[in-house]
Amino acid sequence: MQASIQAGTGDLARAAGGVIGRLRASRPKIHCITNTVAQAFTANVLLAAGAIPSMTTALEEVGPFAASADALLVNLGTFDAERREALRIVLAERADGRRLSWVLDPVLVDRSAPRAAYARTLVARHPKAIRLNAAEFRALSGEEPDAAPLARYAAQHAAVVALTGIADVVTDGQRSIRIENGHTLMARVTAMGCAESALVAACLAVEDDAFLATLSAVLMLNIAGEIAGEAARGPGSFAVAILDELDNLDAKTVASRARVS
Amino acid sequence: MQASIQAGTGDLARAAGGVIGRLRASRPKIHCITNTVAQAFTANVLLAAGAIPSMTTALEEVGPFAASADALLVNLGTFDAERREALRIVLAERADGRRLSWVLDPVLVDRSAPRAAYARTLVARHPKAIRLNAAEFRALSGEEPDAAPLARYAAQHAAVVALTGIADVVTDGQRSIRIENGHTLMARVTAMGCAESALVAACLAVEDDAFLATLSAVLMLNIAGEIAGEAARGPGSFAVAILDELDNLDAKTVASRARVS
Amino acid sequence: MQASIQAGTGDLARAAGGVIGRLRASRPKIHCITNTVAQAFTANVLLAAGAIPSMTTALEEVGPFAASADALLVNLGTFDAERREALRIVLAERADGRRLSWVLDPVLVDRSAPRAAYARTLVARHPKAIRLNAAEFRALSGEEPDAAPLARYAAQHAAVVALTGIADVVTDGQRSIRIENGHTLMARVTAMGCAESALVAACLAVEDDAFLATLSAVLMLNIAGEIAGEAARGPGSFAVAILDELDNLDAKTVASRARVS
Repeated sequence: MQASIQAGTGDLARAAGGVIGRLRASRPKIHCITNTVAQAFTANVLLAAGAIPSMTTALEEVGPFAASADALLVNLGTFDAERREALRIVLAERADGRRLSWVLDPVLVDRSAPRAAYARTLVARHPKAIRLNAAEFRALSGEEPDAAPLARYAAQHAAVVALTGIADVVTDGQRSIRIENGHTLMARVTAMGCAESALVAACLAVEDDAFLATLSAVLMLNIAGEIAGEAARGPGSFAVAILDELDNLDAKTVASRARVS
Repeated sequence: MQASIQAGTGDLARAAGGVIGRLRASRPKIHCITNTVAQAFTANVLLAAGAIPSMTTALEEVGPFAASADALLVNLGTFDAERREALRIVLAERADGRRLSWVLDPVLVDRSAPRAAYARTLVARHPKAIRLNAAEFRALSGEEPDAAPLARYAAQHAAVVALTGIADVVTDGQRSIRIENGHTLMARVTAMGCAESALVAACLAVEDDAFLATLSAVLMLNIAGEIAGEAARGPGSFAVAILDELDNLDAKTVASRARVS
Repeated sequence: MQASIQAGTGDLARAAGGVIGRLRASRPKIHCITNTVAQAFTANVLLAAGAIPSMTTALEEVGPFAASADALLVNLGTFDAERREALRIVLAERADGRRLSWVLDPVLVDRSAPRAAYARTLVARHPKAIRLNAAEFRALSGEEPDAAPLARYAAQHAAVVALTGIADVVTDGQRSIRIENGHTLMARVTAMGCAESALVAACLAVEDDAFLATLSAVLMLNIAGEIAGEAARGPGSFAVAILDELDNLDAKTVASRARVS
């Protein structure tokens, strides 16, 4: 493994603010192959962040949509035969000379062995980033979600790993960062993690450093969640407020509120 | 028919409060085979109540999800070939020695004769509870939704019947209770009934008495709705507030606000 | 082309108010073949406006649902093989002597050539109205979305065209009207356009003049959006408030706030 190339965390938070600025300015198109539970909230999170979502999984259409997208989300919730075939088409599109970044979200692989096995085949197809929770990491890797196994898994698969939960960790195997921002209500709204993965795809569309892109997405959603949580009366008003705060969020707020180490 | 074993309604309201406490404490996993319109709101209602939703209908995955679930919702909105086959797998899973309680929600059977015919075959597969509105009961049973036919239908199929509408009735054929709580805006939000059925499944996961479990779910949602309705400006803010109030709801509020007879 | 039969714009705004009144009174059933991203918000918009939504695309059921519906929405987002076959069944239902009005929403045809080609075959099947944005009109017609090409396209296909965006235009080829109402946040919420098309279907169910029906739907949603935008903090609270305002909207508010020319 190479020596760690680690910028100061303050520098990283400022750089993450810059990613948000580019996201608002360039409005990347993000095609999402995701589950039907998560689609509407994911689309609204992308719109609030400044990106343009599309969501079709129809085999007749998914190729042209991927071809005109700037990044791709692959979320394994409800992964039926159509979605598998759609993904095959989309990854072939990617092989056609274009460098389409994609994010893998192996939702609930801890609940289904066939889904975990399928997710492992996708990890081998070079996602730029993998976002998951502790139980999903255990099911995928067979290891505990501690710092060393996370970094090893990221290095081994040449993918940034974002582990989200009580505190979040982002690592590319060489650099690792811990994000303390967020709010407990984030775990009480369906599709919050799915939407976070879509936001990682959006940041990958405007930032070549996948570690910085992933960190930026996690900071954006967690800081928006933190602000939203201050006034929310429960998970309903929280889900509404996080969209408002994501829309209002600017680079300065991200840089000043980031609590990373 | 056996003699009626009827607790006082005050006792029932207190017992319903206890079900809520167990729901928060044990966080049951509820697998929902439901329509795509209702998925996100249903998942958010389950999360607000303290349960953990899953929603896949993919044939490759639905077996493992059902096997690790604590109760099941079967909602007939959008009941295509895949969902029928998924249900077959899930009910076979149930036959494998586990006692997985399930709830049937025969959405809009009054609009489609094939759907009503299919629903009748499911009633014969022993759901613990059936939640429906007046038009759906008429289409399913060919009778008016009055007290006697409701109780007869419940007894005949050994299932608790929850009829929801202006006032709600829960009956297992021997015991019947009328719930006056609720708010007119509940009928103006899509998937409210679907989510109520999911809540019945969640309560069945923590309470063996299906009559009490069903009553508890109906009370929870209707009392949350009643409180939400006090401040809501219309159906949009109402749908948000009912999630907040469901999250805030405690056993004491349920016991003190219940209006049952 | 016939001479223009154009009522004063004040008369039209008052007539649109009348359409809203009839919508609330008659509660038409609107069957929507639409994408899974848009389903829940579309259903809630229809409910807030006073209509009754249904959404199944299952081939076993879609015929009876269409047969008992008062109007139909066909939205091309996620247009897979099942939805194409469902549409074939539904349009055959329509051919069975009943005059079921339908609206075409050619979502994102600018992103997929196969979808645009399919949309063109549907334009030939006599939708009463087509609602789209500028990029979608370009992809469908090959022309710029200016007044003359829009009117020509409407006349040629005997369909009302509603172009929505910064300012909205409704034309049937003879009459054209520009609507200035609305709010920039309408473009920041997923499925807003899809829901607007569903509202056009709802108005067609209660008003035979397709031009007036389409104008009424566009005015309803844009005025509700304008009022919602006054207090919204961002796209999350805006999406909630527009449902409240749509529910609260009356004929007098529509007539007095309409800015048309």
